[in-house]
Amino acid sequence: MDSVIPQPLRELIEALEQLPGVGPRTAERYAYYLLKADQAKAGQLSSALASLHKSIRYCPKTFALIDAELEVSPLYDNPARDKRQVAVVADPFDIVAIEKTGSYHGTYHVLGGLVSPIDNVGPEQLHIEELIHRIDDDKVKELILATNASVEGESTALLLTQKVGGRKLKVTRLARGLPVGVDLEYADQITLTRALEGRQSI
Amino acid sequence: MDSVIPQPLRELIEALEQLPGVGPRTAERYAYYLLKADQAKAGQLSSALASLHKSIRYCPKTFALIDAELEVSPLYDNPARDKRQVAVVADPFDIVAIEKTGSYHGTYHVLGGLVSPIDNVGPEQLHIEELIHRIDDDKVKELILATNASVEGESTALLLTQKVGGRKLKVTRLARGLPVGVDLEYADQITLTRALEGRQSI
Repeated sequence: MDSVIPQPLRELIEALEQLPGVGPRTAERYAYYLLKADQAKAGQLSSALASLHKSIRYCPKTFALIDAELEVSPLYDNPARDKRQVAVVADPFDIVAIEKTGSYHGTYHVLGGLVSPIDNVGPEQLHIEELIHRIDDDKVKELILATNASVEGESTALLLTQKVGGRKLKVTRLARGLPVGVDLEYADQITLTRALEGRQSI
Repeated sequence: MDSVIPQPLRELIEALEQLPGVGPRTAERYAYYLLKADQAKAGQLSSALASLHKSIRYCPKTFALIDAELEVSPLYDNPARDKRQVAVVADPFDIVAIEKTGSYHGTYHVLGGLVSPIDNVGPEQLHIEELIHRIDDDKVKELILATNASVEGESTALLLTQKVGGRKLKVTRLARGLPVGVDLEYADQITLTRALEGRQSI
């Protein structure tokens, strides 16, 4: 097979195969596309990758991704942001999802994952200690646990509730219920049970 | 939104979104994976991309992808390969699929696509003239049309049959029939019709 795919192309395919959910066929398709496309396209991707780790770092307060030139995240720095309200999320991109709603004006704290024994992720690998410090330093009044509605998300939320226990602090969790625009008959049992439990008077 | 995703990361996401079939969410996932992974992984992909166009070119005879240092494809050069038998394929990676069978010892000719009026691909964009020259120069005895079993593949095959018409040359087409391991009841009507038409005595 060695002579069929030239070495430089094989290297690219192998590198692309490392991406999550990308198999050999998809990697081949990406590589062939990049080869056929304008050379500038491959160059653009190449330089974006080359500078990635140099130009981005984690905010030491919130662990959000920030420009390497910045000290802390603008979402923490901004005086319009209420430091006493902290939304706890698993990954940096969860912030993007919440920011898109435009209806949250507190700050964030990225855990860097969720507790998952299967994936060998324990509480000590997450930024929990730093969160506790922030709670005390910034006199946080509300902790919004905005982790996924999965088993890992729920158990991480439970763990956090225990960790902050004893402090005078409101701990809330994102509401579970019917997604907007979804028919009741298509909702699964657990979601519907949560929607019933969390019903509100109108 | 500008402050939520740092500029260098946004550039990477935008570059990844150019890949075929990759939407904003998948691009974000790839970018975040590359950021979290070892810096070497991003570096590896970056350098593979940077050298791609410099280190690969098309074989002037077969239009297969070859190392830029080579004159012609090793699949054409090799004396063990029968130059008088040519398999015509649409894309370079089709060669890989046929080579994997290990049961073909002729040479290849890559068309560089298929005739598709919808995508603005006409016969003049494909390497058809070069194929005609090869047929005459190499005294080709058999032309195996190994294009897809799609409308574009079939019409390109028909066109090629017309173009080479008049020459003393066997033109064949890959057999259509039941894929090995697939139940007859799951085969579609057209495939089954072709399988009946192409039935062989045992």
